[in-house]
Amino acid sequence: MAQPTTRQFRPLPVPSVNVAGFWGDWQEAVCDETAAILLDRCIEARMLEQVDVDAPNPGLVIPILGWLGTTQMFWDSDLAKSIETIAYSLYRKPNPALEARADAIIDLYEKLQDADGYLNSFFQRIKPEWKWTNLRDFHELYCAGHMIEAAVAYHQATGKRKFLDVMSRMADYMVKRFGRGPGQVRGYCGHEEVELALVRLARETGNTSYMELAKFFVNERGQAPNFFVEEAIAHGRDPKGVQANTLEYNQSHLPLRDQTKVVGHAVRAMYIYSGMADIATEYNDDSLTHALETLWADLTQKQMYLTGGIGPAAANEGFTDYYDLPNESAYAETCASVGLVFWANRMLGRGPNRLYADTMEQALYNGAIAGLSRDGKTFFYENPLESAGKHHRWIWHRCPCCPPNIARLVASIGSYMYGVADDEIAVHLYGESTARVELAGGAVTLTQQTQYPWDGAIGLSVAVDKPTPFALSLRIPAWAKGAAIAVNGQKVDVDSVTVDGYARIEREWRAGDSVRLDLPLVPRALRANPKVRQNAGRVAVMRGPLVYCLEGADNPVGLNSILLGDGLGQSQTATIPNFNGAIAIDLPVLRELADGWGDALYSDAVPSAKSDTARMVPYHLWDNREPGEMLVWVRAEQRP
Amino acid sequence: MAQPTTRQFRPLPVPSVNVAGFWGDWQEAVCDETAAILLDRCIEARMLEQVDVDAPNPGLVIPILGWLGTTQMFWDSDLAKSIETIAYSLYRKPNPALEARADAIIDLYEKLQDADGYLNSFFQRIKPEWKWTNLRDFHELYCAGHMIEAAVAYHQATGKRKFLDVMSRMADYMVKRFGRGPGQVRGYCGHEEVELALVRLARETGNTSYMELAKFFVNERGQAPNFFVEEAIAHGRDPKGVQANTLEYNQSHLPLRDQTKVVGHAVRAMYIYSGMADIATEYNDDSLTHALETLWADLTQKQMYLTGGIGPAAANEGFTDYYDLPNESAYAETCASVGLVFWANRMLGRGPNRLYADTMEQALYNGAIAGLSRDGKTFFYENPLESAGKHHRWIWHRCPCCPPNIARLVASIGSYMYGVADDEIAVHLYGESTARVELAGGAVTLTQQTQYPWDGAIGLSVAVDKPTPFALSLRIPAWAKGAAIAVNGQKVDVDSVTVDGYARIEREWRAGDSVRLDLPLVPRALRANPKVRQNAGRVAVMRGPLVYCLEGADNPVGLNSILLGDGLGQSQTATIPNFNGAIAIDLPVLRELADGWGDALYSDAVPSAKSDTARMVPYHLWDNREPGEMLVWVRAEQRP
Repeated sequence: MAQPTTRQFRPLPVPSVNVAGFWGDWQEAVCDETAAILLDRCIEARMLEQVDVDAPNPGLVIPILGWLGTTQMFWDSDLAKSIETIAYSLYRKPNPALEARADAIIDLYEKLQDADGYLNSFFQRIKPEWKWTNLRDFHELYCAGHMIEAAVAYHQATGKRKFLDVMSRMADYMVKRFGRGPGQVRGYCGHEEVELALVRLARETGNTSYMELAKFFVNERGQAPNFFVEEAIAHGRDPKGVQANTLEYNQSHLPLRDQTKVVGHAVRAMYIYSGMADIATEYNDDSLTHALETLWADLTQKQMYLTGGIGPAAANEGFTDYYDLPNESAYAETCASVGLVFWANRMLGRGPNRLYADTMEQALYNGAIAGLSRDGKTFFYENPLESAGKHHRWIWHRCPCCPPNIARLVASIGSYMYGVADDEIAVHLYGESTARVELAGGAVTLTQQTQYPWDGAIGLSVAVDKPTPFALSLRIPAWAKGAAIAVNGQKVDVDSVTVDGYARIEREWRAGDSVRLDLPLVPRALRANPKVRQNAGRVAVMRGPLVYCLEGADNPVGLNSILLGDGLGQSQTATIPNFNGAIAIDLPVLRELADGWGDALYSDAVPSAKSDTARMVPYHLWDNREPGEMLVWVRAEQRP
Repeated sequence: MAQPTTRQFRPLPVPSVNVAGFWGDWQEAVCDETAAILLDRCIEARMLEQVDVDAPNPGLVIPILGWLGTTQMFWDSDLAKSIETIAYSLYRKPNPALEARADAIIDLYEKLQDADGYLNSFFQRIKPEWKWTNLRDFHELYCAGHMIEAAVAYHQATGKRKFLDVMSRMADYMVKRFGRGPGQVRGYCGHEEVELALVRLARETGNTSYMELAKFFVNERGQAPNFFVEEAIAHGRDPKGVQANTLEYNQSHLPLRDQTKVVGHAVRAMYIYSGMADIATEYNDDSLTHALETLWADLTQKQMYLTGGIGPAAANEGFTDYYDLPNESAYAETCASVGLVFWANRMLGRGPNRLYADTMEQALYNGAIAGLSRDGKTFFYENPLESAGKHHRWIWHRCPCCPPNIARLVASIGSYMYGVADDEIAVHLYGESTARVELAGGAVTLTQQTQYPWDGAIGLSVAVDKPTPFALSLRIPAWAKGAAIAVNGQKVDVDSVTVDGYARIEREWRAGDSVRLDLPLVPRALRANPKVRQNAGRVAVMRGPLVYCLEGADNPVGLNSILLGDGLGQSQTATIPNFNGAIAIDLPVLRELADGWGDALYSDAVPSAKSDTARMVPYHLWDNREPGEMLVWVRAEQRP
């Protein structure tokens, strides 16, 4: 089936999707706990004092660090992501008190804004002399990007325009400042983010100059002579840089279209690829798409944890060597997996393809959502795949980028579930929900009834005012061997209608039409490419999109004493108490015995072993009960 | 056979032992290369400018770091260890030019010394206002200790007294300053070392006040109220400390006799236990010995790498949790294994016991000597047991403690081979050598002829002027199953004469008496206690005292694709070209195949495998040929 190459799929606005079930429970936690907690902790960290022109200037609260900046420079982004989270939460669950708090902060920003539109509390109040002196390190445009995203979200959720207008003025200011025209700056931000934000602003306001500016940033990055080198020389700094000493660190070593390898700081990489994908969609730019396809393969075939975690190293918060995926010391920042969800979602802009959506789901359900405790109150920054028992979620972090990032993703998850073109609805993610879609042919309401991801049965029903022709494309995950579809009770030959991993059901839909999709959730054992030395001789268990792990809460001390043979075939599922129907897997294993070994640290003895039963639980739920060990990659009894 | 509990075994002075064979080759490298290199690099680092009162003051060359000190504070120790190395090298191989360079530096120190005996170039010339303000962090007594050791060595090797006299004046100064008397300071050093140095000085000069001061430091450490807390408060500093924020970091959290767990900075721990063991020997102090026995078991049964490397964590350069022994990220500082050799050697002061000597040999041949390249020119600081190919020896290090530490150990190794009491010679280490020993009953010359550790046949011959009764105690390593001894061709029943792992041959020795010892060097497979999660399902290979490893230079890429079954029984030895007869082990293995796996990073496929041959080489020789991967703990094919 030929696909038009100029199709453009865009996500639904958050308010267009009502979410219940699995994600509904998570959203409740964000509405009831996280949204207010984020604001409380930002305020405790003294962020508002920096914004409020009527408050005493707090000065440098967080000292200048080795890279010559301070995390205080991006306080605006922390507040912005918190407001963005609040915006989405208000849509789900009105909360006048919380809305009033957000309104008050927006008022402070409005008051702070310069007459020319410039807005950044750090450079206006703490270090005015540093304004626009260091695009590479100082996160100035990055903060603008997050505030733009928050303004768009707040407008969508509340209908209030004030923040959107404030940030549009800042965007207008940037449109004037950056470009190739006379007197303009040919720069871009060291921490990408503003690109994807400008696309959102352009879509919300219809102002194409914002889209053009995003395209400019994408096109300009990495062109010779390198802007960051020139900027450093102009300001008398060492052009070799301070952060990790490489241009790869922020993906400015080559023009983006020439890049073939995913390098540097993982979050930055994900954000710029997201922006690139948006521009590729909006301008039907095949040269960008081609570069992104190469980078996608590079990431997912050589540098990604099974959890969708990325960036193994703390040193650069990013990528190291191909196939270097240490489990216990994995950095795998929550923000990086959130960023991978962003990127994957935007790769779907040029048409549904499970290559992207499967990975989006994998990162979402594992590496990303693990960053938030089930009660919505605490946060992981790093997401290792093995822990000896000392890794736990934080109340807060000195660099609090992750908490609001995972919170805003959860609160806006409806927007990631569907992609919409003029005559097609692609269902990327399954989950209890109702979506209101405007197609060229008319309005459609699409409802999903399902206990997914705990159960693989998904019922979809279509509501239309009049018979409406469109394609409904349902993702068939690569892991879903034997997936079945029936339309109004009539079985569909899935293989014959599947293109790029989506079953495309094209028909004139009538009110009451229903589709039944069954995705078999059989636990499966996975191995890593033998080049991943850290996983040699080990096996991981997945069920549907969920990576499972052994946890100390369910198993005796010494998770590396457990060997998994063919026990998965005899496994049984059980409900984990107090986790909204979450499913555990109980399975027979072999357990090496430490008792009887004696005092020796090393010996020529072979440890004895016994048959035993182990329980595995979803990785994203670990460290939500008692503290203890955790292990994803379990020793394999079976040998080649 | 009853052992007298008051026996005191002391090492032989370095000049009393001529070393050839394995260690002779290493000593040649130190004499020909390392000794001068150390001095060259210390001078390039500008250390001499700090000592030379006639040179312009270099000021702070290395900036103050987070712990409020600078590695420049212990430049005197780096120079001292270099002079100590030169001293030993001169004994082996006279070198007038090198001796003149050392003499000149000693002259500079003599000129620098204050009238009251105080000597420390950093606190005299760079930060006089910091003198004696921070015993905890500033390494002031640590530097004195290393200079004392150097002075003793230089006196022994050259017969020149100047440096010994200089450091005796400094020791006299310390004897006045530290103690429980009126006006004295009840402190001790944050980085232990001076204790063992004062014992050496006391033994060399016969001045017991130095021994008493060492005993004072040992007795005082960790007494309440804690000196470091009091000192910090007195100087207006946060008493919680700056380095790792714990008193455990420098073993001052409890009186030493009450300590049962090896904690904190690994090198500091080894140095203070060495000093404790010396004091236990000199004063026949059973309370100290008892504490040391507990600490020894704690270290060797729960916290030591198979290589004798210790201190897995970079964060505190020291110990973490029991059984936490990561291989690839192992810190296992060269100095720490050198320190373990020091401690083990001193545990032999109260009588031969292979519990200590076996571990001394293990640390020496693996974790310690790995710190020096075979050509004597480059140095490891960290000694991981696995490398993906990027870990290589340094030319120099900003904190250059390890290079002269391993060099002085190699150059003085003869002193570690024998322990001597009035009527007994214990042979702790085997190796081609001639030792001149003064017993109560007369002079004995003991010669070893052997290719050990490559071959297990050791011939010992005794030369005496007159028939002399004494015991010759030969260590039978725990791994040497089936060791055989013959005296003048007559077989000895080893078991019946063995006490604490030493075969004790007590007789009236006559000129020309000979002993033949055979230690079977059968390659053996070792496993770690199942509580060591990092080694679960893995096996290591040793032959005699040597740990073996797979290296990229001999094997295809992907050492974690190799599985070792019962191939060790069919292994063959081979000589490694250009390494002085070093022995490699070739053995049949199974190899998982990465080709054919495809592009997927994760899959439900099981990798295919084929039979293959692998080569293992001694761990201490790794990274001496081409750069590449290295692996000690190999995947085991055999399952429990």
